[in-house]
Amino acid sequence: MMFSDDLDHPLAHGGGLAAARRLFADAPEPFIDLSTGINPYSYPLPHLPPDLFARLPDPEALTTVAAIAAQRYGAPTPAHVVPAPGTQILLPLVAALVDPSRAAVVAPTYREHARAAGLAGHRVSEVAKLDAAREARLVIVTNPNNPDGRLFNRNELIVMAQRLQARGGFLIVDEAFMDVGPAEVSLAGEVGRKAIVVLRSFGKFFGLAGVRLGFALAAPHFAARLSARLGPWSVSGPALAIGAAALADRAWITEARQQLTAAVDRLKTILVRADLEIVGGTTLFLLVRTQAASDLFQHLGRAGILVRSFPEHPSWLRFGLPATEDGWARLQTAMAAYAGTD
Amino acid sequence: MMFSDDLDHPLAHGGGLAAARRLFADAPEPFIDLSTGINPYSYPLPHLPPDLFARLPDPEALTTVAAIAAQRYGAPTPAHVVPAPGTQILLPLVAALVDPSRAAVVAPTYREHARAAGLAGHRVSEVAKLDAAREARLVIVTNPNNPDGRLFNRNELIVMAQRLQARGGFLIVDEAFMDVGPAEVSLAGEVGRKAIVVLRSFGKFFGLAGVRLGFALAAPHFAARLSARLGPWSVSGPALAIGAAALADRAWITEARQQLTAAVDRLKTILVRADLEIVGGTTLFLLVRTQAASDLFQHLGRAGILVRSFPEHPSWLRFGLPATEDGWARLQTAMAAYAGTD
Repeated sequence: MMFSDDLDHPLAHGGGLAAARRLFADAPEPFIDLSTGINPYSYPLPHLPPDLFARLPDPEALTTVAAIAAQRYGAPTPAHVVPAPGTQILLPLVAALVDPSRAAVVAPTYREHARAAGLAGHRVSEVAKLDAAREARLVIVTNPNNPDGRLFNRNELIVMAQRLQARGGFLIVDEAFMDVGPAEVSLAGEVGRKAIVVLRSFGKFFGLAGVRLGFALAAPHFAARLSARLGPWSVSGPALAIGAAALADRAWITEARQQLTAAVDRLKTILVRADLEIVGGTTLFLLVRTQAASDLFQHLGRAGILVRSFPEHPSWLRFGLPATEDGWARLQTAMAAYAGTD
Repeated sequence: MMFSDDLDHPLAHGGGLAAARRLFADAPEPFIDLSTGINPYSYPLPHLPPDLFARLPDPEALTTVAAIAAQRYGAPTPAHVVPAPGTQILLPLVAALVDPSRAAVVAPTYREHARAAGLAGHRVSEVAKLDAAREARLVIVTNPNNPDGRLFNRNELIVMAQRLQARGGFLIVDEAFMDVGPAEVSLAGEVGRKAIVVLRSFGKFFGLAGVRLGFALAAPHFAARLSARLGPWSVSGPALAIGAAALADRAWITEARQQLTAAVDRLKTILVRADLEIVGGTTLFLLVRTQAASDLFQHLGRAGILVRSFPEHPSWLRFGLPATEDGWARLQTAMAAYAGTD
């Protein structure tokens, strides 16, 4: 299927709480945002001295974060790491590392990939399976996939990268949710040897999406081109300080993974009790399929709970994790009421 | 003169305090950074609730900042305003709004403009005068100019934009220092009618360069293309909150301009007493020319004061403003010692 949206037109995403409040004006407050796949148990902010906001970010702070990220993600060296103000802004830049050609996005997935490849001048197809991408010079997969949690086989991805390399292309692997995925599936360690660019998101797992920090992991010649496009100071001073602290904090990371595993089990129980079919997910979100998705979205909205709907997949809803006990209780009550009146 | 630097190679800039500390390892602390043109009397940070860091920036916060910026800068409407994580990252994107052609940068100026136009695929010349740019489809001026404070005539710029429009091009006016420039020279109000894109920097005047916030002001069809390239959430949550507060704070803005005028007079006195020739500047920095620039740079470095040198203009030094009375005293002492031993 060709991707044919207007490339300049914004796509729908989760996180639009202000709009939700208008849509459900009578809903109880606080509105509970379950519409994103962001860890609600955020990494505790370190002290942020005013100088981080006042001064231009020192180039050496960027180098430090690249080194810490290389270690955390398992990239070969810091020269393989490009820090950016979120991975989103990297998407068209990474896609433009190969001259305009054919691109294939393994879909359904995060829709910005197809739009970004289109912005980079590619003819973009959305394909259901990796195998179907054989014609393309640029192939884009999200692993684990969003919103269904689908996992791609590491060896199949490497074989695909070899094929792409033979025709002057490469593979983009968006590992935005790999912090909670099976880490051994990550291709971060392969970016030096193979025609692979890996994207890693900081804000999702650390629950700090407002900070805007993300990384491309790529061979040094690609990394240098991406850095040149971003220019100096693309990452804010606070983001560099927060990233350096969080990415090195092994104890917090281990604990957060356990906490998320427990939380997603709790969410699963609530959804299963309401007779919803769980299609997949990660420990940061679950995707359900129901013919009554639109009704359930409205029901939850009126209860002050925002979940993610998908205009292009009207039977899907994605649920993130509540941040507080009050949030869990309200979700449980709303789902029970829904199941009871169904 | 053709711009022929390696486009992927980082250029030298001010603000590299960590590197300066290594270069002048015996210098007294705190090191005083006068190497940038950033207001040292920063806008006081508003309270930043943790949610600004945790949540994805709400799309409506971006719209709010665009509206406040339109008002502050005098852009026709918020649809003419593109918020970005600093203007730096916008430079290649703005230059790419016209297909690869000839670009002219009125120089000497901020060197990233030539590099960015090169990245966008243009053949880039650096020209000394606006008149000399007649062959180009893209002309870039910085007004007031950095580092010499040179001001371009508003009508001449408009005539140039009309010429460029006739050949399918446009004029980029970098108004990074226009907050302290003569505001009536700004072309922000013309971006809807004329083939002009204006760049405005947030961090310099408000003294919050680490926040990463900047704006392109452009006709709505250009603005939509730039926004599409940046994608959603390009500006961090804290930057949106700080920007919204600061850009609307008229009282602070008025006072800051007066404070900077007084401060630059004080700097001028110190430099003139040391027999330095002042080439120009703004109220955020002064540029001096001296055959002994390299000696003076070293002398100040040993005294723990970093100023901006220009590898391509070895007789220039740019001085920013000290932040504290201690900084003023140390600058005065160091300059007096220099003048005495000259």
